[in-house]
Amino acid sequence: MPHNIPFLSDDCSACEIQACGITLNISRQRMNNQQWLDLLQKGRDSDLIGAQQRMVDGEIVNLTENRQALHVSLRSQDPQAPYYADVQQALARMSAFAEDVRSGKWRGARGKRITDVVNVGIGGSEMGPHAVYHALQGVKQDIRLHFLSAVDGTLVDRILGGLDPDSTLVIVSSKSFSTRETMVNAAAVDQWLGEAGLDAAVDRAKHVVLVTAKPEAYREMNVPIENQFPLWNWVGGRFSVWGAVGLPDMIALGPEVFKEMLAGAYEMDRHMLETPIEQNLPAILALLSTWCSSHWGMQYHCLLPYDERLRHLVPWLQQLEMESLGKTYSPKGERVEGMTGQGVWGGHGNEAQHSFYQWLREGTGRTSIDLLWCDNPGHSYHHHHRVLVANAKAQAKALVTREMPSDGFFNAVTTIRLDELTPRRLGAVMAMYEHKTTMLAHLFGINAFDQPGVELGKRLSHQVESHF
Amino acid sequence: MPHNIPFLSDDCSACEIQACGITLNISRQRMNNQQWLDLLQKGRDSDLIGAQQRMVDGEIVNLTENRQALHVSLRSQDPQAPYYADVQQALARMSAFAEDVRSGKWRGARGKRITDVVNVGIGGSEMGPHAVYHALQGVKQDIRLHFLSAVDGTLVDRILGGLDPDSTLVIVSSKSFSTRETMVNAAAVDQWLGEAGLDAAVDRAKHVVLVTAKPEAYREMNVPIENQFPLWNWVGGRFSVWGAVGLPDMIALGPEVFKEMLAGAYEMDRHMLETPIEQNLPAILALLSTWCSSHWGMQYHCLLPYDERLRHLVPWLQQLEMESLGKTYSPKGERVEGMTGQGVWGGHGNEAQHSFYQWLREGTGRTSIDLLWCDNPGHSYHHHHRVLVANAKAQAKALVTREMPSDGFFNAVTTIRLDELTPRRLGAVMAMYEHKTTMLAHLFGINAFDQPGVELGKRLSHQVESHF
Repeated sequence: MPHNIPFLSDDCSACEIQACGITLNISRQRMNNQQWLDLLQKGRDSDLIGAQQRMVDGEIVNLTENRQALHVSLRSQDPQAPYYADVQQALARMSAFAEDVRSGKWRGARGKRITDVVNVGIGGSEMGPHAVYHALQGVKQDIRLHFLSAVDGTLVDRILGGLDPDSTLVIVSSKSFSTRETMVNAAAVDQWLGEAGLDAAVDRAKHVVLVTAKPEAYREMNVPIENQFPLWNWVGGRFSVWGAVGLPDMIALGPEVFKEMLAGAYEMDRHMLETPIEQNLPAILALLSTWCSSHWGMQYHCLLPYDERLRHLVPWLQQLEMESLGKTYSPKGERVEGMTGQGVWGGHGNEAQHSFYQWLREGTGRTSIDLLWCDNPGHSYHHHHRVLVANAKAQAKALVTREMPSDGFFNAVTTIRLDELTPRRLGAVMAMYEHKTTMLAHLFGINAFDQPGVELGKRLSHQVESHF
Repeated sequence: MPHNIPFLSDDCSACEIQACGITLNISRQRMNNQQWLDLLQKGRDSDLIGAQQRMVDGEIVNLTENRQALHVSLRSQDPQAPYYADVQQALARMSAFAEDVRSGKWRGARGKRITDVVNVGIGGSEMGPHAVYHALQGVKQDIRLHFLSAVDGTLVDRILGGLDPDSTLVIVSSKSFSTRETMVNAAAVDQWLGEAGLDAAVDRAKHVVLVTAKPEAYREMNVPIENQFPLWNWVGGRFSVWGAVGLPDMIALGPEVFKEMLAGAYEMDRHMLETPIEQNLPAILALLSTWCSSHWGMQYHCLLPYDERLRHLVPWLQQLEMESLGKTYSPKGERVEGMTGQGVWGGHGNEAQHSFYQWLREGTGRTSIDLLWCDNPGHSYHHHHRVLVANAKAQAKALVTREMPSDGFFNAVTTIRLDELTPRRLGAVMAMYEHKTTMLAHLFGINAFDQPGVELGKRLSHQVESHF
């Protein structure tokens, strides 16, 4: 049990770090100034930014799978970036297709405009596009997105029950094109199209497109090769929203919005590569995470957006960090010492005040917390926004105020303010968390890009299924 | 670090406990048989069921607020139950109103049938009804529910943007009728009705109803007294879905469905009061929670329904357990020893496999887990259900299988099977978790029914708001 829980100070001007329209305030972290300086030095000594540069340059950083990890290339504006030409070509194809669907040039087989897109995909093929759509969708959408992820008939019923096959486009999104859930769901949606009489190849060509790294998938699905958009094995699923996995977003929100999001992510990439540690947003988030987990034993991190639009960042970040960092072995098979990634959970901050804040304030846990909000609202309810932001600011303080922190239960809070939630800012925030994640993997000496622990579960479920 | 992590066995027939259509399997809990017997004895010695009986009988168990905690009365079929007549009268009023709305006898001021209900409420006034609606809604609903909870203009825009005021009924739900978020949101919805020309008292009478314990609320809101449905200060917000807080569910799903849910909860209440500890579902869940938190230091509990319909049980349970049990002082102000309630998080189990299971399997955490599924699906996609349940069963095993559990990171799993998800079973499951929660409070010696930690945040946010 700790008996002395220091604090960076509220008045500490060095505690506000700003870039890409994002302002971190770390004054409510549990450390003294010397510990903070030591932590920054640890970042420098471990060549944190250099390791990121090697990833960006295309070194094989996914050692267990012998692959590059070049999600950053998907948004690069630098023609020297690896695969630049491939990426631009794919983006151009996606944009043209999205524009055709949006303009009504592309229609269903019986001539109806597309009003609904069903994204059939799970994990990385769902969480990124879902988070983006939830953040940026308009109050009234000409084209709505639906995410069919789990292999759950209720979800199929509830999604398809509200749709007209004639105005529905289905995107089957799976890197391997063998993900069990996605294949079973794709078959169900296929059957639904077929029952509506859309079963001829010429019909399917207007209603089914694919996003996959498997070259011959279009043949299996009996659609034209033009209906297939590429993924690459140098991008991991949970880092893939910037490419063809984001196709549903591009259709629903428009190519310009999508490109703004890429531009914001690229801005963050430059910031991350060019900024010294003490001003580097993702580096600071990564170092604070190691501090909270290793020094204070905080196994869990809580993300609390005070913004409806950012609600789906929680499951997205949950996958990003937990699947990337939930490991205890180095790529060479050595047991890593100490703690690795934190568990991630959270919810809309204002709702959480009326739910689990009681536990955060007075329960027997220790949690690190990110509070997020936007200075400018994306709506015209100014009084609402005033009350909402007042709540966020007050809770940033209340969540670190305990009567007796010395009894071992307390929190550490970082606040993250955006000037406003534009597509560009959203891109920057998501890229910031991506870099936080890969930097943490470097600090721990683990591979951020594989998921060995998922395999046993898959084997076991095949066994169970065959004995059902 | 533990070096010996025992296991109840897969073959242990005593490890399956069944009641009310619910089957617990606790064979993947981390304890040996003697520890299990000792734990049951602890439950007996602490008079766990006796304490629940006193709650049900109407003793003042909410000591800090000097109140009874009689949510069980809201579903009692025993005419001797406290407040039985009041409850029946309120249920009859709710049923009649819900029937009128459903049949089209009650219409909007300009004659349109009600197709959408906006529930304006936060915390206990949102999470219960939301969880129930998400579980039991049909694929096509004649009357849809919308939950306006956070004081967030985007949420207001997104909800109201899709609605026609003429066919919308607004329920303002707040026990105190002073919850800041709810009052601000109610004003916004009021203004929206007014802008549609529905501002005369006679119009409002058709579009606004109230659920509250404040007798004069109807005057403040300028609606007839008949439009107000009662809450009572002997029911806590997070235990309140069984009464007027559930009015939106009764309207959307029908009084018969709602009464079935009450009947299932009552069935669980009888089971809980009449069954010895070793066969008592909520008692076993409570005892296992103390074991996982106190013996193994598992600060967090993960709820993983393999069922789209049960997805919203996660935020509901999060509030129920964390707001009830996130405390470290007894009602007399004495510091309670050791751990109290666990943090609760989770998600749809099948989606989570492609997200955070990697962390649960191989990360540096220790977590207790409830896996839920239904033997019979509520849909006709039988192959989906086969795959889904195979996954749930396989993961129950995979989540407790680690290469080196002796390094201190491991999980404990309870599986919870329902025969099928009827309204009756949903009521039983929710009541089971309620009793788990109040039993835990008894074991810890804390008050499950207050929320002192919420108060500081409220004071601080008023201060911040006034300096904005």
